[in-house]
Amino acid sequence: MTDVRSARTGGADYRPMTESTLAPYLAGFNEVAVILGGTAQDWKVSEVGDGNLNLVFIVRGPEGALIVKQALPYVRLVGDSWPLPLDRSFFESQALITEDAAAPGLVPKVILFDAMQALVVMEFLTPHIIMRKGLIDGVEFPRFAATLSEFMAQSLFKTSDLYLPAAEKKRQMAAFCANTELCRITEDLVFTDPYRAAKLNHWTSPQLDDIALEFRADGPLKAAAQAMKLKFLSHAEALVHGDLHSGSIMATSTDVRVIDPEFAFFGPMGFDVGALIGNLILAYLSQMGHEDEKGGRDAYRAWILKQMVDVWTLFSARFVDLWSTEGKGDAFTAELFTDAASRAALAEEQARYMRSLFEDTLGFAGCKMIRRILG
Amino acid sequence: MTDVRSARTGGADYRPMTESTLAPYLAGFNEVAVILGGTAQDWKVSEVGDGNLNLVFIVRGPEGALIVKQALPYVRLVGDSWPLPLDRSFFESQALITEDAAAPGLVPKVILFDAMQALVVMEFLTPHIIMRKGLIDGVEFPRFAATLSEFMAQSLFKTSDLYLPAAEKKRQMAAFCANTELCRITEDLVFTDPYRAAKLNHWTSPQLDDIALEFRADGPLKAAAQAMKLKFLSHAEALVHGDLHSGSIMATSTDVRVIDPEFAFFGPMGFDVGALIGNLILAYLSQMGHEDEKGGRDAYRAWILKQMVDVWTLFSARFVDLWSTEGKGDAFTAELFTDAASRAALAEEQARYMRSLFEDTLGFAGCKMIRRILG
Repeated sequence: MTDVRSARTGGADYRPMTESTLAPYLAGFNEVAVILGGTAQDWKVSEVGDGNLNLVFIVRGPEGALIVKQALPYVRLVGDSWPLPLDRSFFESQALITEDAAAPGLVPKVILFDAMQALVVMEFLTPHIIMRKGLIDGVEFPRFAATLSEFMAQSLFKTSDLYLPAAEKKRQMAAFCANTELCRITEDLVFTDPYRAAKLNHWTSPQLDDIALEFRADGPLKAAAQAMKLKFLSHAEALVHGDLHSGSIMATSTDVRVIDPEFAFFGPMGFDVGALIGNLILAYLSQMGHEDEKGGRDAYRAWILKQMVDVWTLFSARFVDLWSTEGKGDAFTAELFTDAASRAALAEEQARYMRSLFEDTLGFAGCKMIRRILG
Repeated sequence: MTDVRSARTGGADYRPMTESTLAPYLAGFNEVAVILGGTAQDWKVSEVGDGNLNLVFIVRGPEGALIVKQALPYVRLVGDSWPLPLDRSFFESQALITEDAAAPGLVPKVILFDAMQALVVMEFLTPHIIMRKGLIDGVEFPRFAATLSEFMAQSLFKTSDLYLPAAEKKRQMAAFCANTELCRITEDLVFTDPYRAAKLNHWTSPQLDDIALEFRADGPLKAAAQAMKLKFLSHAEALVHGDLHSGSIMATSTDVRVIDPEFAFFGPMGFDVGALIGNLILAYLSQMGHEDEKGGRDAYRAWILKQMVDVWTLFSARFVDLWSTEGKGDAFTAELFTDAASRAALAEEQARYMRSLFEDTLGFAGCKMIRRILG
């Protein structure tokens, strides 16, 4: 059961939880108790977050376990203090709920959202590992491409004008318009800082010093990156996850889940697809750093390459399939395309749309890769 | 002075004004009294609206006159009853205030907005006439192209990501997301109904019967119109007027103003430019219906044709000029384009942007023209 109280997150009674205060707090919520079993004194709480952005606790009871994620009002980075709004936990919980409705079972289930405490209680995933770690260790995840393509197709399609009535889409969009501070991080770190001398920039020095200078002086590249930034700012196509790389994916050999959508907002679909593809390209290229001997990662490299192809191929086929079978939104009004000739024209328009989305995907993938290397 | 109370328009005390209740009501507002002069018993009130959508009053005092526009909770059309939300007066007043800030003096000044009464008091324009009437009567308006190009360049640029910080743009955008019911009218009447058998459709029959059928069966045309509709729904580029045709323009030989932005929302810039160009094309074509003798309107036709060219030419030059000199928004971060090579790359990107905006303009102009003929 989900308790969404308010978009105004963090009240006067907000206080960061500790391993000792969390169990008594959770005892007040029946939906939590029924999952954990027993009572508060039976629950074992461990703080497992890195403490920079959020507190993350695992709570184990006799019958089950849960994750509790609480936002902190700041982020410590490179010795600097940087305030971050607590309401990102509202956007994260809302995005998880929306994504779970669109693509059931592909994100952790939200059990409880408490706006006052900027705190989300959610399903504990085990024995999942962060996929980024797997990519470094050379682990194949057989369900990766199928799951991520399904997740993106469902979550993007079902929050777009192809599926939603305009009024409902604008209602959701208006709420996520307030997630400006996290969007601003992406605007700066992904689209701007790699092209200027920014104090948060960090690259392999001195090896990449010339490249960094070259990029900062490359007018056409900067203009192209800013054109992508304008799309990021103004094309409200669907609820995008906003940070869809391998660090936001937890996986086992049989299950894959997408986590951490606190950067979610209504933006261009290609931003999610491009983030994922760009991340795979970097993972592919970085395998040489993980080889014990030359060629030692050839098979794994081939697996990653196949994932890129599969993710796009499966995603685009699924997206068009959803559009053709469940396209009940206010764009492309279904009743105009009932006869064979109109269906054929619609199919051509869908192909044009997917080509344009692929171009966006490549553009955003490029921006994300540059950001990873120079940002 | 402007009094914006709330987006929740129309309260328990809402009541349609009459010629006898309006003056005593207005007497409570000092900003009104100072313009009209005298006291309520000196003020002469005449209802001049057609009563279908809004009540419109002219109020004349010893020292000045004002227009009062009050929303009615319904619209009577073709013998049907159709409820319309009162909050359109909120969006209209907000849009007028935003447009006046962006392009001072090109819209009627808002003196007062009363959310409870869904009522806007604004500057009285005289001796202006509705430009639509002038186009029928063959009247040239020397300031038309210069004013409309300036209005569009300023109001679109200054509400876009090229000028506004992202957080401020999203704040404005979120507010206008609620103007869904008026947007829905455009979605249906402009983008959908001309391509299906809709009961509000109305065309010159039997002359255009075959054309209407042909359009309803034209798959590629319907797919193209729906692609424009998707842009209308999802591309939140700037605050567009939303109904920018000659019926929303008041003019004299020396002054031109844009009125009635109750359809305003954050949408694609090309929708405004296209609405205006499409309207001029139809005005051009309809001159043959106003000729006393063949060729009698040739000079006027040439004037209209020149306006189309001038509107686009002046608009696009002005827009790029604003972008280059006042582009301080979060898109195209100005500090990335300070050296000559980067400025040249930016200029190329601006040219690409304007070509794309011109394509949108033609697409939306086509949709609006089809709607005028078949919708």
